[in-house]
Amino acid sequence: MTDDALDAVLERVSERVTPDADERERLRAVTEELTDRAETAIEELPVDADVTQVGSSARSTWLAGDRDIDLFVRFPTEIDREELERYGLDVGHAVLPDGHEEYAEHPYVKGEYEGFDVDLVPCYAVDSATEIRSAVDRTPFHDAFLQARYTPELAEAARLLKRFMKGVGVYGSDLRTEGFSGYLVELLVLEYGGFRPLVEAAAEWHPPVRFDLRGDGGPAEVPPDVAEAAEFDDPLVVIDPTDPDRNVAAVLSEANLARFQHYCRELLDEPRESLFFPEPTEPIDAAGVREHLDRRGSHAVAVVFDTPDVVEDQLYPQLRRSLGGVADEFDRRGFDTLRATTFADGVGETASGTSVLFVETAVAELPAVERHEGPPVHVGEHAASFYDAYADDESAYGPFVDAGRYVVEREREHRTPEALLRSDTLFDVALGTHVETALGGSYDVLVGDETAALAEEFGEELRAYFEPEI
Amino acid sequence: MTDDALDAVLERVSERVTPDADERERLRAVTEELTDRAETAIEELPVDADVTQVGSSARSTWLAGDRDIDLFVRFPTEIDREELERYGLDVGHAVLPDGHEEYAEHPYVKGEYEGFDVDLVPCYAVDSATEIRSAVDRTPFHDAFLQARYTPELAEAARLLKRFMKGVGVYGSDLRTEGFSGYLVELLVLEYGGFRPLVEAAAEWHPPVRFDLRGDGGPAEVPPDVAEAAEFDDPLVVIDPTDPDRNVAAVLSEANLARFQHYCRELLDEPRESLFFPEPTEPIDAAGVREHLDRRGSHAVAVVFDTPDVVEDQLYPQLRRSLGGVADEFDRRGFDTLRATTFADGVGETASGTSVLFVETAVAELPAVERHEGPPVHVGEHAASFYDAYADDESAYGPFVDAGRYVVEREREHRTPEALLRSDTLFDVALGTHVETALGGSYDVLVGDETAALAEEFGEELRAYFEPEI
Repeated sequence: MTDDALDAVLERVSERVTPDADERERLRAVTEELTDRAETAIEELPVDADVTQVGSSARSTWLAGDRDIDLFVRFPTEIDREELERYGLDVGHAVLPDGHEEYAEHPYVKGEYEGFDVDLVPCYAVDSATEIRSAVDRTPFHDAFLQARYTPELAEAARLLKRFMKGVGVYGSDLRTEGFSGYLVELLVLEYGGFRPLVEAAAEWHPPVRFDLRGDGGPAEVPPDVAEAAEFDDPLVVIDPTDPDRNVAAVLSEANLARFQHYCRELLDEPRESLFFPEPTEPIDAAGVREHLDRRGSHAVAVVFDTPDVVEDQLYPQLRRSLGGVADEFDRRGFDTLRATTFADGVGETASGTSVLFVETAVAELPAVERHEGPPVHVGEHAASFYDAYADDESAYGPFVDAGRYVVEREREHRTPEALLRSDTLFDVALGTHVETALGGSYDVLVGDETAALAEEFGEELRAYFEPEI
Repeated sequence: MTDDALDAVLERVSERVTPDADERERLRAVTEELTDRAETAIEELPVDADVTQVGSSARSTWLAGDRDIDLFVRFPTEIDREELERYGLDVGHAVLPDGHEEYAEHPYVKGEYEGFDVDLVPCYAVDSATEIRSAVDRTPFHDAFLQARYTPELAEAARLLKRFMKGVGVYGSDLRTEGFSGYLVELLVLEYGGFRPLVEAAAEWHPPVRFDLRGDGGPAEVPPDVAEAAEFDDPLVVIDPTDPDRNVAAVLSEANLARFQHYCRELLDEPRESLFFPEPTEPIDAAGVREHLDRRGSHAVAVVFDTPDVVEDQLYPQLRRSLGGVADEFDRRGFDTLRATTFADGVGETASGTSVLFVETAVAELPAVERHEGPPVHVGEHAASFYDAYADDESAYGPFVDAGRYVVEREREHRTPEALLRSDTLFDVALGTHVETALGGSYDVLVGDETAALAEEFGEELRAYFEPEI
């Protein structure tokens, strides 16, 4: 690997992700128009407010072709929450007549305008990010912090890093992805002063890694013992310079940090554009799934149910929690989870989609009996009552003595993973609330080759599962 | 339960186990004759020696019908080991012309005489049991200690206790049984002064239990913390009053102590003669084994091989060690041992018998792949070399990232217990030396219903396994 090779790759990627003059001008013009419309709408209100553009489009760090404009309407802190929401929606609907309401911490209007996806979000104009009343109040401070420090060179580096993270699948602070947010990307680029120094450093990080940009800046990885002493126990900690009680990387999963580090090494070892622009995943078909199951010799089971009617950020943590609950129960019962995944479609849509908990176990069937250890024979009454409970139980083997204890082999509750899934035991495991409710309606259990039918709807997810990249 | 009921049982048992006057007289007469013959033979030797009767026949604690006479010939400590052995065998063959040589710590002669099984054992006439040169030198001291203290009442109690222990299967200090020796029985009876007080106390023992009869005597269970502080960590410790460095109960297994305690409770709860004289075990047949396997739904495998040509006390520890090695390896590999046993015939005989390691596993078959965790991604070179080792391995799934680590699913070495048993992996587990040698010759592996064929030769052992008493 030579610097030249990486430079050449970065140059080509940069060409593809840097918006050209036309695109920039068009975004500027539309933003101005939207701002004007918002200000006009504000004049109709009984309170004063101002409009500010935030996000990547405000800082020229957006990727060519992205068409997102985020406008925040900042209201005085004197008005109450209800007024804020009402006025915010008034302005939103005035600016975006065809928009619809969405809900983050409070409602806002989202809509298309001149080909751009526009979010029009009301917030409080607080004096400092530490005084926020709602999470969105923080955003203008992030924007101001970066605007004051960003140069065109840093913006170019931020675009490269975003594209790289998208390419390797770790970009996005939503709870489905659990990756890096745009703000986090821009802070990391600011910390290291460029794309290459960041990637070179990240390849060598030893999590937990901690950054605090409130000081003079410059890369300053705090030694692990100090990081452990901090109040965050996340693998990557980036103190929010506008609010030091917050870790900007709180959402990032350990696995995605590891994936990022892995791909930083890959990029340095063998620079290539495909890490930024990977081929799309080809969906696997049912025959492909069957082939993998046959080759793996595992026992696949799937719980299939209607996707609960909640937003993505609520759904995925619940699906993962449910999957973990099932996998742990399988392990406790001796079925030994080999690997597991969860996927869903129709998330956040009114028409119901399908959600799946998919588990491969190592064990397809267990004996009709299971070993059950009683107390040591010498513990007197406790031992005697165990013995008496089983002495006349025709269904049990024993009691007999093993290593000083009474032992019986009693009837096993569930001999197969699917028997467990089809029983009430499923509801004893730690399921997410809405998943539990959905399963309380009805659900299907697919076993072995039957799971191949899921490829129809989830071919990409199953390809990624059976042919994992990293 | 009333005392009367137990008394009545003990009275009936006592009648059955107490030798009558004829039997006692006959044993006395034969012993005298054997002693005379031995003394005559000693006169031919260039050294002096004396003859002493030891064991239960010497102390009137034998069970009616037992026909064992143990005579020890005590030689002066001046002669060397080789002379002792030579002179000892000379006397032995003179006394028992049809006898054959056996080997404990040194050779001795065993033979039949007038319908009695006679052991004629040479030993050194040391001054104290702490000065012994070989384990057999200790026996005359045991005998002297008990002779000096035993009364006819104690002898009766000892006979009851031996019969009870035989009945419940815990009598015998050989390494196949791992139970109570005759000497241990007699010391315990001496300690408690009778059968009933011993049984009542034993029902409540909290192992580790420790006795030291060197003092004034009387039941004195040392508190557990003191017992743990002692130099023996056996569950039952009875300090040998003739040699305080020795635990008379060293051979007794934890399981057999627990069984004894269990049956002491049974006897007190519901006194019955059948605990002393149980029905013999009816051998199970092949159909019975298949029925159990079917009901249990377990996966049975058996390693069948020629019984190694060693004595019982060598063979059984090795069989157990080998069985433990196999069972542990099954557990490590995910087959999950449900229960296991070992049995053999033709032990110590010249014609070769059959030995068996029999294991039931919970798991019959595992997937073709197994999860293999690599290092955390961030550990640099170590992680990179793991990744490189598997990145191009077509047979493996991955590497992918899970919880910050590289993980692969690689080909599993053995998918079934029987595949492991048929491979060299069998020789990687902790096998007993002679078992390992025997298996190195040849062995069969039986699977599932095939194991039912073992009922032909081992019907009793398999009945005890599938219908365990305690």
